[in-house]
Amino acid sequence: MAPTAIDVVHTSNVAPASSVKPAASSAHLHPLDDITPAENKLAVELIRDYHRDDGFQPWFKAVQRQEPRKAVLLPWLDAFHAGRSPAPLPRKVEALYIEPKTARIHEAIIDLASQKLESHNIVPGNHRTNLDICQLQEFERELLKDPLVKQALEQLGLDADTPIASDPWIYGADSFEDQPYLMQFLMYLKSPRNAHDGDNFHYSWPLPFVPVVDVITGKIARVDWCYTGDSADGMIHTWKQGWAKSNMEEREYMPHLQNNFQPRAGLKPLILQQPQGASFTVNGKSVEWQGWKFRISWSAREGLTLHDLRFNGRSLFHRLSMSEMTVPYGDPRPPLHRKQAFDVGDASCGFTANSLALGCDCLGAIHYFDGHLALPNGELLQQQNIVCMHEVDDGIGMKHTNYRTANPYVVRRRVLVLQTIITVDNYEYIFLWHFDQTGAISFETRATGVLSVSPIDAGKTSPYGNIVSRGVLGTNHQHIFCVRVDPRIDGDGNTVHYEDSLPMPFETEEDRLSNPYGTGYLVHKTVIHHEGGANLDPMKNRTFKITNPNKLNTISQKPVGYKLHLPATQLLLAHPKSVAYARAEFARHHVWVTKYRDDELWAAGKYTNQSNGKQGGVATYSQAKQNTVNQGIVVWAVFGLTHNPRVEDFPVMPVETLMMSLKPADFWETCPILDIPTSSQAVNKSTLIISNNEQVADEKSCCKF
Amino acid sequence: MAPTAIDVVHTSNVAPASSVKPAASSAHLHPLDDITPAENKLAVELIRDYHRDDGFQPWFKAVQRQEPRKAVLLPWLDAFHAGRSPAPLPRKVEALYIEPKTARIHEAIIDLASQKLESHNIVPGNHRTNLDICQLQEFERELLKDPLVKQALEQLGLDADTPIASDPWIYGADSFEDQPYLMQFLMYLKSPRNAHDGDNFHYSWPLPFVPVVDVITGKIARVDWCYTGDSADGMIHTWKQGWAKSNMEEREYMPHLQNNFQPRAGLKPLILQQPQGASFTVNGKSVEWQGWKFRISWSAREGLTLHDLRFNGRSLFHRLSMSEMTVPYGDPRPPLHRKQAFDVGDASCGFTANSLALGCDCLGAIHYFDGHLALPNGELLQQQNIVCMHEVDDGIGMKHTNYRTANPYVVRRRVLVLQTIITVDNYEYIFLWHFDQTGAISFETRATGVLSVSPIDAGKTSPYGNIVSRGVLGTNHQHIFCVRVDPRIDGDGNTVHYEDSLPMPFETEEDRLSNPYGTGYLVHKTVIHHEGGANLDPMKNRTFKITNPNKLNTISQKPVGYKLHLPATQLLLAHPKSVAYARAEFARHHVWVTKYRDDELWAAGKYTNQSNGKQGGVATYSQAKQNTVNQGIVVWAVFGLTHNPRVEDFPVMPVETLMMSLKPADFWETCPILDIPTSSQAVNKSTLIISNNEQVADEKSCCKF
Repeated sequence: MAPTAIDVVHTSNVAPASSVKPAASSAHLHPLDDITPAENKLAVELIRDYHRDDGFQPWFKAVQRQEPRKAVLLPWLDAFHAGRSPAPLPRKVEALYIEPKTARIHEAIIDLASQKLESHNIVPGNHRTNLDICQLQEFERELLKDPLVKQALEQLGLDADTPIASDPWIYGADSFEDQPYLMQFLMYLKSPRNAHDGDNFHYSWPLPFVPVVDVITGKIARVDWCYTGDSADGMIHTWKQGWAKSNMEEREYMPHLQNNFQPRAGLKPLILQQPQGASFTVNGKSVEWQGWKFRISWSAREGLTLHDLRFNGRSLFHRLSMSEMTVPYGDPRPPLHRKQAFDVGDASCGFTANSLALGCDCLGAIHYFDGHLALPNGELLQQQNIVCMHEVDDGIGMKHTNYRTANPYVVRRRVLVLQTIITVDNYEYIFLWHFDQTGAISFETRATGVLSVSPIDAGKTSPYGNIVSRGVLGTNHQHIFCVRVDPRIDGDGNTVHYEDSLPMPFETEEDRLSNPYGTGYLVHKTVIHHEGGANLDPMKNRTFKITNPNKLNTISQKPVGYKLHLPATQLLLAHPKSVAYARAEFARHHVWVTKYRDDELWAAGKYTNQSNGKQGGVATYSQAKQNTVNQGIVVWAVFGLTHNPRVEDFPVMPVETLMMSLKPADFWETCPILDIPTSSQAVNKSTLIISNNEQVADEKSCCKF
Repeated sequence: MAPTAIDVVHTSNVAPASSVKPAASSAHLHPLDDITPAENKLAVELIRDYHRDDGFQPWFKAVQRQEPRKAVLLPWLDAFHAGRSPAPLPRKVEALYIEPKTARIHEAIIDLASQKLESHNIVPGNHRTNLDICQLQEFERELLKDPLVKQALEQLGLDADTPIASDPWIYGADSFEDQPYLMQFLMYLKSPRNAHDGDNFHYSWPLPFVPVVDVITGKIARVDWCYTGDSADGMIHTWKQGWAKSNMEEREYMPHLQNNFQPRAGLKPLILQQPQGASFTVNGKSVEWQGWKFRISWSAREGLTLHDLRFNGRSLFHRLSMSEMTVPYGDPRPPLHRKQAFDVGDASCGFTANSLALGCDCLGAIHYFDGHLALPNGELLQQQNIVCMHEVDDGIGMKHTNYRTANPYVVRRRVLVLQTIITVDNYEYIFLWHFDQTGAISFETRATGVLSVSPIDAGKTSPYGNIVSRGVLGTNHQHIFCVRVDPRIDGDGNTVHYEDSLPMPFETEEDRLSNPYGTGYLVHKTVIHHEGGANLDPMKNRTFKITNPNKLNTISQKPVGYKLHLPATQLLLAHPKSVAYARAEFARHHVWVTKYRDDELWAAGKYTNQSNGKQGGVATYSQAKQNTVNQGIVVWAVFGLTHNPRVEDFPVMPVETLMMSLKPADFWETCPILDIPTSSQAVNKSTLIISNNEQVADEKSCCKF
């Protein structure tokens, strides 16, 4: 749950300004440019001023530029791309903040030009925002001195000052009734031999108790104990009969801490160079590459967002983002049944983003983007290198050889990659957007980091996970992601349909008139007329397409469109009557289509922390079943990983990869990469390895063309 | 259907040798080494000698070393790896040949030491071998002068000497009754403007007739006419009302033939270098890399085969190969209903392999393997660069950052890739085996090349495909692949099971005792006890595992194993009562398990050409339902692509990619890549692109570790 890019945040209160100063002129800004430091300062001061007499200092969760309403933004963007100089749109800031020591959430919109709060409301109902590192650090300090925690350690036969590590976790929810505002810690011993080293690996030493914190008071409310037996033990607290750290063993990942670390030999350097530079151009947050034009932005919750994506001058997508993910664990035994993280809404992709390092997180010719986010005290957190961008050679993109001449035609596949990585406590998610030269765009997730684990008695196994280290249960769990796709395929008015490939009947004499040998199949098209969800059906090769019914491909006579390539993965396993199910609205279907409405960005609702079915989300957005044909629509793509851990996934997990893609389908009137120069050794400068790695020689030969 | 690596093959008959000469000593050979030129010569002479009085010259389809029977090979390999010097195994050759101008197939095994045919048999039943380029060239010559073809051109209003292109195709089958031995040609105009250029693109000029060749006589037996209307026309020969080449238009892919070719600007060179050489070592056909040891071999039908794969001294797989693929087309209208290619059995992966070129087909530090295959006349076809091997950086392989210290731990993912590419008439398949440092192995297919197309009347559309160029229908079709996995997971005696992740019940009070909040799920294991097929079920996250029940992982207490990651793709659409279905036995299930038996290599039977349900295959192999628990078993992995073409797929198709993987699952007792040195700029030498590509600077900073 905790950010990595923040080291220590000083949350000194800043006195409210009774008179605010104008922000620097915004005339030079693009409407999608992130909030500037001056705008942030002005907005924070305006909010403080607004609450001057309310007896609290606003505790900021997000202060960011509000995206102009789409109805005004689209004409502006079209005018901009047409080379006109549209008048700047009003810059507005949206702020989310709480009253410290309460659950009360405020939302405000600030108009910067008039220096006024355009709107302010206190969020009704019992919602909770994400917790931030400043709060969590305070709770952790509380934890270390709490008598309940000391008592728990004692019950386990440990000294009260045994070095322990505590990972903050959102509390989750297990009741449809509103619960107190809580959070929890998962507890570990620091690796006994290496406790002095901050990078010691505590996850091989899980403790069987969970301190629960009252967020309002900051105090430990209670300690919950875990079940550590096997299925035969059911819900008996077997840890009482002999939890002992000798059940567990030291595991380390950091080379300087691994026992007798012997680096694997023989891996020769592999260097990727672009002597003439990269093929992309960057201007602020605007990127151009091989026909692509798009912008990126950076915000607290979504982290990296892509905007206004166009290819060869035609619009494709208005906005692409990671909307939400849910990570439910399959061990039903309290208190670990509560483990269900919504890492976007609960933790935020922005604050948890890693600062990437050259030569480590990316290879080749790299451009980095920086970002900044408002801290609870309103000051800016400067984040360096939170997105890297580089090009990759992805092998052959297209080949044909006319066997009569044996003249090969080879076009390699170059891909532009934007990567951002988040650390959420134990776990890492690597998010990569891939752009290719055909106009296809893919979103890849790589799950890595450390499994979430719990203690298990020596010699036992569990149906809820796999033993991944002595005394350590790697719990079975799911990661279900929802990518929000705001399409604008060749302009406004889009429709989603799916196509099933189904055999033609071959039973009756009549069937055989049109299908005489039983080999025929047909593509059945189902239009999604109204808001709602639909599922993949890979046995029917079900393929979702987003089309623009107002634009026909002159070759195929079909509407221009994009195909959604989505891996057919398991949906949420939590029971439909469970709170866990109610919280993760998006995880019930693979694809959702909603009508576009401003600010509907959150697949599991805006406030996911301790949500219990009243938080909304994409099922709620869909409830009115509005018409989605030839409309401004949003497509929500859901895919995931049911991860039943292997022993190989510990102590650190080799990446598990998932990829979804959006590919042109009758969007162009020919293969769109016929103009790419064919592959040639003169450019690629490969080297020939003769044998046994003894000789390396340049070879002049190459393709004929 | 036609090879690319063969230019012109002279099929001069060689007089039979009445006394044969000894082959060179084979004592230095590994039992899996390919047939040597001397062995080939000896075998060919022995066979000719054997048939001296039979009145025919053997026409060779395959002459290759017979793999030693597994029962003797395994002990030899184990002794070899243990550093002992086991006595050489007898070298044997298996030969497949026909009597020219007949359908009669001979199979022989030659013992090289005794210089005797150990066995010889004439294949019973009406099977046909693949056709070879020598036969096809003869048929094509016949075609060009045939009056039926001239007459067909005339009926279309074309001069008899109009430049035409003819693509040879296997005939397929549409009857359970045995049919005459036939093949067919798909006909095209040579691009009128570019007919003089051998690389002219004829696929945008399809003709609506199909000459059928009697393979025994080599003569055109008849001409079949195609339906070119839409669904309203049903089976009316609408081409008669005005097929005209003016319905179609010139499309070219070769840059020198494209109209006003303007190469896309701005793609900067991307160079991959390994200044210290590659990390693999090669010794003949033996490869070592990062813990891996395996051998490759080359043969007519399978092309590239992998053998005896071991990692860190433990055996993983005995043999991996592309067993078969079927490519059925969904247009039910005769004669194109017959289009169902089995490109391994009908065309062969060996003869159709491309000679790869440095800097074109692979990028970086490349090793190439050569091969040779016996031609119909018994001479050797030398094939250069038919497999390339190189390393790839595949991004981040593993990352974790302890947020308390912000010290990142990053291990990059290096992959060893072996690539081979085949051209089957219009189509290209790129096959890639990927090895990673965890012991995982993946098989990737990339489909590219040119769609198989047919003519369609101007202004019409079809339910059986998509118009991809004026007058050209890109027919809907499937590619279904079957990879044969001969496992030897940590030694002998393997078992396959699958695991379904299913919600725990949450309905009754009793359910709630073990699943109080409805969040629990369990992994249900189903052992495949007997030979047969099973399907994926992605909604259950069904995962197949191959385990060795004789070896327990000491951490998890589960048998050591490998997971099969298979994309859940659509199976064969042809109707179960159709001949097309009967021919492609493997394409009915995603996974098959059979007991290991020598020579059972062919998922759709040994003789696929014109097969009609009597050819065997994996369903036939499974019929006895033998016990597959803790046995020598074979796993057949089936996956594919239902390809309903896009306009973007023409004239050449950007790659469509599929990947299956075999990953260790409780095979190791820890994450197997903890010993890989962490990523560092000192080694990787990335460069920093500041902005607008104007500045490129080296940066010294890097990960701390």
